[in-house]
Amino acid sequence: MDEHLQALQQTLTQDIPITHSIGITAENYDNKGLVLKAPLIGNTNPKGTAFAGSINALLTLAGWGLIWLVLKELDVVGDIVIQNSSIDYLRPVIGDFAAICYRPEQADIDRMEQSLKKKGKARIELSAEIYQEDVVVVEFKGRYVIHQSKDAHSSLPLLSYIQQAIF
Amino acid sequence: MDEHLQALQQTLTQDIPITHSIGITAENYDNKGLVLKAPLIGNTNPKGTAFAGSINALLTLAGWGLIWLVLKELDVVGDIVIQNSSIDYLRPVIGDFAAICYRPEQADIDRMEQSLKKKGKARIELSAEIYQEDVVVVEFKGRYVIHQSKDAHSSLPLLSYIQQAIF
Repeated sequence: MDEHLQALQQTLTQDIPITHSIGITAENYDNKGLVLKAPLIGNTNPKGTAFAGSINALLTLAGWGLIWLVLKELDVVGDIVIQNSSIDYLRPVIGDFAAICYRPEQADIDRMEQSLKKKGKARIELSAEIYQEDVVVVEFKGRYVIHQSKDAHSSLPLLSYIQQAIF
Repeated sequence: MDEHLQALQQTLTQDIPITHSIGITAENYDNKGLVLKAPLIGNTNPKGTAFAGSINALLTLAGWGLIWLVLKELDVVGDIVIQNSSIDYLRPVIGDFAAICYRPEQADIDRMEQSLKKKGKARIELSAEIYQEDVVVVEFKGRYVIHQSKDAHSSLPLLSYIQQAIF
């Protein structure tokens, strides 16, 4: 597994305890985007298909994780916050499920980097999907905000409070 | 605790296993709406505030649960599916959190009941919020579809497949 992807997996498991219960695993990361997976078992609704809350959590984290990986590549330490999202549940999810968050165009990443350098803050919109046997079954759009921090574990209480990630 | 609210709590815990991990409890149900609660512990993100995925799950279930309770009142057995939702994370959630899903106007409930009787299917849009010390910190809108079923545990495979709840 790629070193950064492995670090993301560790962050998810250690710092977001519910991902452990959901069973989220960081599966793949390449130029296309980030893939996270979750098993159906433990994530069912009364009908035995996947619970929308688990699906939404996987997609929210696919977006968050993609930015986390891009920031690693840019060697930027930042807090990533989801601001809003919308989701369309097109078909029931009847088995283990994978979410892909698509890597934005390079121009959007460059814009994000410039904004972080100039303003210490940037916004980016991401698209993600759940697919099942090559069919898109859930569509997701999320808007994230990144606050650059020179020290990821800032000891300044006010700054730390302002930068608290809601994601 | 109200009998129906207690039955909802049992359904959540037994039929949606992840609600047990999130720690969701059915708190109150009255003319204003349904309140579900979750603790911060177990639902944190790397910053120690509430993880967006847990927040979204609570709101999704507040909407689902409200319809579940209204159907009980109408003595209708139906499958409730979330079709789409949108969410705005306005502020970090820094403690235990409660979601309220507002009961629709009676005219909307009447329309839903009529549609179920005539077409065996109905749609309804619901609004829900997370509040914290009387401040709204998350806003949610969800569109749900209800399929009436004469037998909640229908043995017709095709019908059962069509009615599979994605929620």
